[in-house]
Amino acid sequence: MTADEAAIRELIAAWMRASAAGDLDTVLGLVTDDVVFMVPGAEPFGKEMFAAAAATMKSANLEGTSEVRELQVLGDWAFARSFVRVAVTPPGREPVRRAGWVLSILRKGADGRWRIARDANLLSRV
Amino acid sequence: MTADEAAIRELIAAWMRASAAGDLDTVLGLVTDDVVFMVPGAEPFGKEMFAAAAATMKSANLEGTSEVRELQVLGDWAFARSFVRVAVTPPGREPVRRAGWVLSILRKGADGRWRIARDANLLSRV
Repeated sequence: MTADEAAIRELIAAWMRASAAGDLDTVLGLVTDDVVFMVPGAEPFGKEMFAAAAATMKSANLEGTSEVRELQVLGDWAFARSFVRVAVTPPGREPVRRAGWVLSILRKGADGRWRIARDANLLSRV
Repeated sequence: MTADEAAIRELIAAWMRASAAGDLDTVLGLVTDDVVFMVPGAEPFGKEMFAAAAATMKSANLEGTSEVRELQVLGDWAFARSFVRVAVTPPGREPVRRAGWVLSILRKGADGRWRIARDANLLSRV
């Protein structure tokens, strides 16, 4: 595994850890400023809308796993296909479980750090 | 627009034209042998399963449009975000309309031709 591959795998693991911890500042540091999130049935959205949506979820408990099944580094860009499972539990409610695949495009910044730049999230209720 | 960008836009247009014409051989020539298609709620699938599914749809009428909204060329790889609308009409039935975004990763082959290598299809019923 190259240093870039290891850094990207750590980024994806850190994303899930920070999300589970509700650490939004860390999560936002893992994406580029021009990140585009894509989900079924909605318009793509950027960092600001992601942050606003995450803030409304702050009281929910989130647990999840993310398994990188393919990773290809293309110079200062890379793409990854991951299988993700998440369970989101709002206070006093039953968990909502979703699972599925994510296709992510990552970019290495001038600071040498990899960040998520584009993210197509195909998770569905399970 | 660079020659690569023009070639990729033409590839995406050719994909929709060949799909509408039911020209499966041409469609299959526009994807890499190791292509991975990703759709919500299903496991990713490859060229062989795509061909089998397309063959079962042969009697349906397909019309659609694909608008490339972002295209970035990264050497011999590229990615595109497109907004796609399709209407599939089985014989004697009402059209099934779907619309949404697609994130595609493309690769330039040794023959200089661009092909679709990974495709995350986020279309939903409209």
